[in-house]
Amino acid sequence: MKLTISKNELNDAIQQVAKAISSRPAIPILGGIKIDVTHQGVTLTASDTEISIQSFIPVERDNLFIAHVDKPGSVVLPAKFFVEIIKKLPSDNVEIQVGAQFQTMIRSGSSDIQMVGLDPEEFPILPSIEENGLFQMPGDLLKTMIRQTVLAASTNEQTAVLTGVLWTLNNQQLKFIATDRHRLASRNAHTETDPEYRFSNVIIAAKTLVELSKLVPEQNALVDIVVADNQVMFKLGNVLFYTRMLDGMYPDTSKIIPQTYKTELVVDTKNLMDAIDRAYLMSREEKTNIVRLITLDDNSIEISSSSTELGRVTEQIDAKKFEGEPLRISFNSKFMLDVLKVIDSEQIFIGFTGAMSPIIIKPTDHSYNMYVILPYRTTT
Amino acid sequence: MKLTISKNELNDAIQQVAKAISSRPAIPILGGIKIDVTHQGVTLTASDTEISIQSFIPVERDNLFIAHVDKPGSVVLPAKFFVEIIKKLPSDNVEIQVGAQFQTMIRSGSSDIQMVGLDPEEFPILPSIEENGLFQMPGDLLKTMIRQTVLAASTNEQTAVLTGVLWTLNNQQLKFIATDRHRLASRNAHTETDPEYRFSNVIIAAKTLVELSKLVPEQNALVDIVVADNQVMFKLGNVLFYTRMLDGMYPDTSKIIPQTYKTELVVDTKNLMDAIDRAYLMSREEKTNIVRLITLDDNSIEISSSSTELGRVTEQIDAKKFEGEPLRISFNSKFMLDVLKVIDSEQIFIGFTGAMSPIIIKPTDHSYNMYVILPYRTTT
Repeated sequence: MKLTISKNELNDAIQQVAKAISSRPAIPILGGIKIDVTHQGVTLTASDTEISIQSFIPVERDNLFIAHVDKPGSVVLPAKFFVEIIKKLPSDNVEIQVGAQFQTMIRSGSSDIQMVGLDPEEFPILPSIEENGLFQMPGDLLKTMIRQTVLAASTNEQTAVLTGVLWTLNNQQLKFIATDRHRLASRNAHTETDPEYRFSNVIIAAKTLVELSKLVPEQNALVDIVVADNQVMFKLGNVLFYTRMLDGMYPDTSKIIPQTYKTELVVDTKNLMDAIDRAYLMSREEKTNIVRLITLDDNSIEISSSSTELGRVTEQIDAKKFEGEPLRISFNSKFMLDVLKVIDSEQIFIGFTGAMSPIIIKPTDHSYNMYVILPYRTTT
Repeated sequence: MKLTISKNELNDAIQQVAKAISSRPAIPILGGIKIDVTHQGVTLTASDTEISIQSFIPVERDNLFIAHVDKPGSVVLPAKFFVEIIKKLPSDNVEIQVGAQFQTMIRSGSSDIQMVGLDPEEFPILPSIEENGLFQMPGDLLKTMIRQTVLAASTNEQTAVLTGVLWTLNNQQLKFIATDRHRLASRNAHTETDPEYRFSNVIIAAKTLVELSKLVPEQNALVDIVVADNQVMFKLGNVLFYTRMLDGMYPDTSKIIPQTYKTELVVDTKNLMDAIDRAYLMSREEKTNIVRLITLDDNSIEISSSSTELGRVTEQIDAKKFEGEPLRISFNSKFMLDVLKVIDSEQIFIGFTGAMSPIIIKPTDHSYNMYVILPYRTTT
């Protein structure tokens, strides 16, 4: 293998695939990045067995040469050093040459680096995925749906399915749901797919979706998504992102969502967020994060929290709308802040069915988004 | 005590003094910020017994009212919550009122906060410092001198004096020295003080100097420095910064500095830094940080490092000047990088007196700065 390649193009591809490298690889070869060179271009691959990322650098783009291939071939290079040295090389071009026993020479300007390469045959083969179940969605919509749901996923590995986000597709409606049993986030969107195409119980780890989200380009390009038996593949331009689905059945969450409300509020999202943020500072000192919401007579609500050692925060907010029964309810301020930070609407609707029943939070300007928070049972 | 004060002015002063608050205060009252209100203004004080910081907010500045004092008084408020809540208050003005048993009301817009205040009489009194030994220096010079020396201070608390920076003043020459026995940093400057005024063995903790440095304003104002028996006080505009000196005698470091050289090099600082940075990446994998420097015949030097598992980095750099004997020497690449990052000169002089003797590094354009690094004894 022998090639000369643009340092910046190589570095960009390395940064993309490096996200799949575990700090404690299951087998030593997975601590490396596989490099496959053909006359068409250079493919980098990294994997931690749960996720695998592949990035392709073509030899030319828009009639500009990116790489000059003298001799095709493959090698695996230890990732930690390789990731850092490439971006620090002195010249804009990098020459890479693999000799006997995968001894690799990297040259750039006055730098001369020898690396002990590994046998690419030892690198696991990526799953082959049949493209019969492909659908597409805009990259920024995918990012938004991830951001608006992952917050409610569990971080407790004991119930593995709840550390994931449930994906279903039915009647062209794509839906994401996440819950840790104390709160629930749901987001759906219409997608331009074959109306016959559907899937259910596709569960993808929330932390995988956060990593995927970082790889989605800012430009609003379409992402190809292929759902196979136990794998999902995402095609983001020149990058392929593979993830395993989480095993198990996701619980039925439809029953915990109330359909009617006894008290309905509409408030300004930012005013509520700022008030709860201040109450949160006090509640955090008590390690409970409990804040209380009380409806007042004059179309306003009071948010408060208290700490025996520190004191008390009391906030008053005007309600844009207040209908139904007066209410006193306590909930986890951190959970509410997480929701208010990702709702991109100026005003929100909050529906209550009593002090012991789930709280529903929705944007006022569309119905794609819905959150549920279970209240605290307190005596005050 | 009762006053109304600008939120931003109060917040700025809080952020300044908050640096003196320990996360584990020696006595509970030191987990608080003391607030003293007079008709002249508001003084905030915080202390962790090693350092104390005081910030004064005048009632008006440039004919603009900053605070309106209804009733003077004092209180101590728990810092952690107070520091965070003030910056998040909804209005530009904050009303603070202290009632019976130091119960404190904080009001701003729709926020109403009650805090459990503490008795200001319990707060330790700051040391009284006689101003007989005052000198002045420009703030940016003080920052530079700190930045160029703290890197060589020890982090090992076992030899407490070496965790500090030694300050001496003699003949209007202020000198800072720091060493951890493996390397030494020295920086001096001429100051416009009384030629009769002098001090020696003033040792100030390096981490204290780093905190002080953050409080020195960007504008090039003069800093007043008062050296007392076992305390040093810095006056930075409206902020007073007190620190205790470290106890003990600083070792004599003059003998380890060679006066003549067998090999002299002048190289471009950035070229050398970048080359050593790449060699460091490889040396770090071996956990030794060892790099080797070899003079070559053609007025250039070679920097290299190797790792049995990973491979080898070799870098070649042109010398602007090369005089004396050929040389092979090994040293800690991290120590050399620390020096190269703080030398603000385009070219540096490196002087050697043999592979086992201290390496001297100096800027080429002035003589205020000098660094010493002890080489590694290696057989290769």
